[in-house]
Amino acid sequence: MAKGFEENLDQLAALCVRFGLNIQPDQELILTAPIEAADLVNRITAEAYKAGARHVLPLFADDAAVLARFEHGADDVFDYAPKWLYEALGQALKGGAARLAIAGNTPGLLAGQDADKVARSARAQSVAYRPFLDAITSGATNWNIIPFVTPGWAAQVFPDLAPQDAIAKLWDLIFKATRLDQPDPVAAWEENFATLTHRLNHLQGLNLSALHFQGGGTDLTLGLAKGHKWAGGGMTLENGTRYAPNLPTEEIFTMPDKNRADGRAVFTKPAVISGSIVEGLVVTFQGGKAVKIEATKGQDIAQSHFTTDEGASRLGEVALVAQTSPIAQSGVLYYNTLFDENAASHIAFGNSYAMNLMPGADRTQAGANESQIHMDCMIGSDQISVTGIGQDGSRHPVMENGEFLI
Amino acid sequence: MAKGFEENLDQLAALCVRFGLNIQPDQELILTAPIEAADLVNRITAEAYKAGARHVLPLFADDAAVLARFEHGADDVFDYAPKWLYEALGQALKGGAARLAIAGNTPGLLAGQDADKVARSARAQSVAYRPFLDAITSGATNWNIIPFVTPGWAAQVFPDLAPQDAIAKLWDLIFKATRLDQPDPVAAWEENFATLTHRLNHLQGLNLSALHFQGGGTDLTLGLAKGHKWAGGGMTLENGTRYAPNLPTEEIFTMPDKNRADGRAVFTKPAVISGSIVEGLVVTFQGGKAVKIEATKGQDIAQSHFTTDEGASRLGEVALVAQTSPIAQSGVLYYNTLFDENAASHIAFGNSYAMNLMPGADRTQAGANESQIHMDCMIGSDQISVTGIGQDGSRHPVMENGEFLI
Repeated sequence: MAKGFEENLDQLAALCVRFGLNIQPDQELILTAPIEAADLVNRITAEAYKAGARHVLPLFADDAAVLARFEHGADDVFDYAPKWLYEALGQALKGGAARLAIAGNTPGLLAGQDADKVARSARAQSVAYRPFLDAITSGATNWNIIPFVTPGWAAQVFPDLAPQDAIAKLWDLIFKATRLDQPDPVAAWEENFATLTHRLNHLQGLNLSALHFQGGGTDLTLGLAKGHKWAGGGMTLENGTRYAPNLPTEEIFTMPDKNRADGRAVFTKPAVISGSIVEGLVVTFQGGKAVKIEATKGQDIAQSHFTTDEGASRLGEVALVAQTSPIAQSGVLYYNTLFDENAASHIAFGNSYAMNLMPGADRTQAGANESQIHMDCMIGSDQISVTGIGQDGSRHPVMENGEFLI
Repeated sequence: MAKGFEENLDQLAALCVRFGLNIQPDQELILTAPIEAADLVNRITAEAYKAGARHVLPLFADDAAVLARFEHGADDVFDYAPKWLYEALGQALKGGAARLAIAGNTPGLLAGQDADKVARSARAQSVAYRPFLDAITSGATNWNIIPFVTPGWAAQVFPDLAPQDAIAKLWDLIFKATRLDQPDPVAAWEENFATLTHRLNHLQGLNLSALHFQGGGTDLTLGLAKGHKWAGGGMTLENGTRYAPNLPTEEIFTMPDKNRADGRAVFTKPAVISGSIVEGLVVTFQGGKAVKIEATKGQDIAQSHFTTDEGASRLGEVALVAQTSPIAQSGVLYYNTLFDENAASHIAFGNSYAMNLMPGADRTQAGANESQIHMDCMIGSDQISVTGIGQDGSRHPVMENGEFLI
């Protein structure tokens, strides 16, 4: 008999706490979640205390409150976000608290709102959020993101289904993507992580100068940072704690040189920027900078977001994803970064990750990008080929028609 | 036709934001609420943005998470509470944020739990919470407490009714107690506050040395702090903002001398201490200190709570409440301080309020109590009489059979 929904939720909670976060005895946990996820949060809370957690602090977000602010807020409130809160949260992470994000945002929630307010609000949020994000990207603590199906998300992914059917179908895909359909989900993840590790070790060994993406209208040469480090799958803290930041995750990723991106990228999936959906995005790069941003929908949102600051128009991450991953195989557009970034190779505008640079490498010399934003945009498809370019100009095939050759 | 439930909720939100908090343009709002109150929180959030609020931060609490901690938490977690969070929240209040507490805790939630863990958890919470509480009691900002009916609370108050009937009946009492049954609730509150102001001005003019409570087994002489100041009803910040801390509120209150309480107090309602219910409490005072604590139920909880620290066994507040208030008239035991403290005169163990001392008065000379706790315990009833004792020993009748004579 197939597992029931309740059992799957319990297994998702256990996978998140024991494998994703790998909560340590006496560790504090700070989690953010949509308010609809309260039941899953309770399962995670119970599991965290079983694992020895000292305290679990949930911070719930409610779409209705976000919309109320746009509907009734005075104009200048959109330049404000509670920096004091994120500073305190960031300090807690640096003090050893673990961080969980339960991601179930409603895509397109702000689609009908004033673009200027949306952009200003996103900018204020990014700036305020920075100390919290820094604590994560600096490798200070173990963290994890897992998905949760909200009615708004399910309706966006399956607009033609009845609400309950859309929710059930999306959960089904999530349970598959998180390997909960496997007899031993942790073993399945360990196997997947071994494959990712093999690939990133191979690429690390090549010490590439650049990656060349070609196909489906894309022709982009992307310089890699001097001293770049490939990462993916599981991570290990300095204290030896292993954790898995994203569940699901299928990507291997590294740091581009912010001054070396040239050519044209045709994005293969819509991007959800501050709750608005940007479609048909095409960006032209020169010397690392996005010099031309076109979109068939939401161009003003994209334009505004990618000019948040100097680094927002340059790249902070490049990631390779096989077209054979369960997420890519589902053929579904999820309107959710946690899924769509794992369905396709992508580049990210904005801030780079410290973990993607070798210890001791010079950030400035490497061309490490800095920004208030980090926005993944998908360029992978079954038409894309990726070639590694060595320091000596040699060419090394990495992917063909969206599949790994290594 | 009677108003519908939805309209009452909207009016409660408006009363809370416009009259209780009196949110100012560009002010931030920090609120705590049971997760069941999410809908009311959204109405309050919308109303706050309409009033010009800059940002609303809700912090939701879930009974299930509290119980999960007691069920699964390691023994030493009960000595921990997230002080870093309350410090940040306290700083935000000192920086001008308003504070709303939506009170709907389930009385007796922790009744079945280990008393030592309950006591240690409460102590840790009190210590950690102190910076947040200090910001409120120091008069740094406008704040407000309003009630919300949770299923657990309603079931405790009306155990013999069906759940939905219990919830509806308790809401009905709340709408009455908050004057939402009046044609103009704000006008009704202004009238009530005028009565409270008349009484507290009268008592202030007498400059009493002590209060003598007598009746129903109680015989307690309570010294008042030198330089004590009576308060009640509406409050005014230094910047001129008027607000109403508690809705409902029926009390006038001042500061006792922590070294002058002698006699015996028979408490007339159960006290809810850290989620456990203490019944039949009788306390004997000598020189301001509770030297004997008896209870027919929960004696260990009371004993433990009132020894949290040196000040926990001494008094920080004395309050007078007419037996004719809507709450007292309902004859219902609410198991909730916001209501029960407004149904009867009471004394509070623990910390005193700075607002209850004249500007410039010396806290030490006055005998101002300090503690991590502040626990209201009801001594009022229709059998109690209160007599003011002047500095010259003169006697001034204040209440008789629970009714004001002034």
